[in-house]
Amino acid sequence: MEEIAFKHTLPLQIRFNDVDKFGHVNNEVYFSFYDLGKTEYFESVCPNVDWEKDGIVVVHIVVDFMSQIFSTDHVSVETAVVSIGTKSFELAQRVVDSKTGEVKCCCRSIMVAYDLIKHESKPLTDEWVKAICAYEGKDLRRKNSPGQ
Amino acid sequence: MEEIAFKHTLPLQIRFNDVDKFGHVNNEVYFSFYDLGKTEYFESVCPNVDWEKDGIVVVHIVVDFMSQIFSTDHVSVETAVVSIGTKSFELAQRVVDSKTGEVKCCCRSIMVAYDLIKHESKPLTDEWVKAICAYEGKDLRRKNSPGQ
Amino acid sequence: MEEIAFKHTLPLQIRFNDVDKFGHVNNEVYFSFYDLGKTEYFESVCPNVDWEKDGIVVVHIVVDFMSQIFSTDHVSVETAVVSIGTKSFELAQRVVDSKTGEVKCCCRSIMVAYDLIKHESKPLTDEWVKAICAYEGKDLRRKNSPGQ
Amino acid sequence: MEEIAFKHTLPLQIRFNDVDKFGHVNNEVYFSFYDLGKTEYFESVCPNVDWEKDGIVVVHIVVDFMSQIFSTDHVSVETAVVSIGTKSFELAQRVVDSKTGEVKCCCRSIMVAYDLIKHESKPLTDEWVKAICAYEGKDLRRKNSPGQ
Repeated sequence: MEEIAFKHTLPLQIRFNDVDKFGHVNNEVYFSFYDLGKTEYFESVCPNVDWEKDGIVVVHIVVDFMSQIFSTDHVSVETAVVSIGTKSFELAQRVVDSKTGEVKCCCRSIMVAYDLIKHESKPLTDEWVKAICAYEGKDLRRKNSPGQ
Repeated sequence: MEEIAFKHTLPLQIRFNDVDKFGHVNNEVYFSFYDLGKTEYFESVCPNVDWEKDGIVVVHIVVDFMSQIFSTDHVSVETAVVSIGTKSFELAQRVVDSKTGEVKCCCRSIMVAYDLIKHESKPLTDEWVKAICAYEGKDLRRKNSPGQ
Repeated sequence: MEEIAFKHTLPLQIRFNDVDKFGHVNNEVYFSFYDLGKTEYFESVCPNVDWEKDGIVVVHIVVDFMSQIFSTDHVSVETAVVSIGTKSFELAQRVVDSKTGEVKCCCRSIMVAYDLIKHESKPLTDEWVKAICAYEGKDLRRKNSPGQ
Repeated sequence: MEEIAFKHTLPLQIRFNDVDKFGHVNNEVYFSFYDLGKTEYFESVCPNVDWEKDGIVVVHIVVDFMSQIFSTDHVSVETAVVSIGTKSFELAQRVVDSKTGEVKCCCRSIMVAYDLIKHESKPLTDEWVKAICAYEGKDLRRKNSPGQ
């Protein structure tokens, strides 16, 4: 996995009941961290996001859990779009210790934009693609990938 | 991915607040389904499981979301151990429609057994390995994989 | 509190991450149990419930936690409508051990029906009131309570 | 209910999946807000809190839901100890709009301190009682209440 320069960081608030009987943050909770990171990413990077009509749906996710998170830790979620196809795009995210930068967990996910009124997937709009590429500082559109 | 004959099935109870504002079961909730499936698997297959001292921790997970789950659906989680190494083992799981068998979501995860008293990973005991292989009906121990 | 004859019972599935680091079911989770009980109550008792347009919203709740629930317990939620006003109705619920009947937690809540399209509260329909009174076996309508 | 001067305020991070299919924060989630508020209260007010041995358990709670919370709202939880008995103490909490101060939800709860090693309730220590009274700026100990 190439090195990613994450520009988007969101500090996370750990809740009492995020911690399971093993004494660490339950692995299910990481996915609400990733959800929070990507929701905030699109709201701050893309113009005119309307979660009443625009959905962002995960279809494939790969997660590596590297280190436990305890209730006293201060952690943040980092999010980057790493490539954009015609029908899907790829997100890299990780949960890191806010102070030391230690990577607690990292993930790659394939997302599709989803029309919540028509209940069908849809391409990312040109407006969003431009905004994301501008934010990330490079052209993320995948070349020669008609099936993607 | 080879075809897996799942022997372990657990019907799931969907809760009101599993459904998010998109009107379907939130993707975070699938991980509590997988947790429930594997906890019940080990309790019913392995002798003398004691969740006060024996932890089962996920270190890597790959998930494909194939079809949405709605609050009126009846779904089950299926679980199988597919291979056992010296330090880790692999689990296949999927969430299926209990009536039609339609696969809603499937996952592969690499797990490690974890000593909750000493706070360190540990090998699966011979007793557990034998019980799992007997349940699955085949020798799941990986050959020639000293690093695994 | 008068004795209530609960006719509606729903067995609950406890999830791994319902249990917090104190080793018992976290008190937040009880409210998802109560939500599940009342959703299932209205679906089975009232005709033509449509959760896309009919909401049932809690405005006031009183809960007594009597005994801890552990992950190995088998518990059920019991639900009864105990009185119906013109603008609100009262629900009694409790979580009990499915085998011994031991009461783990009980609650009283004041609910209002809510129109999810118009975003405003609305009276229970006559059809629902009749169905609920028939199910509970008595006339639950509050007399002389114009402000309720 | 007398007017309470809340000195302890904690801004809350709303998660994507806190919002249910009615489009507002699910009522179950309020209890994780209250948990977060009281955990943070005791950690910051009382000396030497150790959540491995000191539990704070709710035995009775009364909640009024006054106004819905939406995903775009900024809310905080306010917490105050309002009285201290020999075996229990009372907490007042509310969730408010961080900007307008609008009260979204308020609650009163009776709590007991709980010894997590011995698994039994215990009195608040004199050290904690003093720290809480000093923080709240008044003597909160209930007089003549031997049974409480």
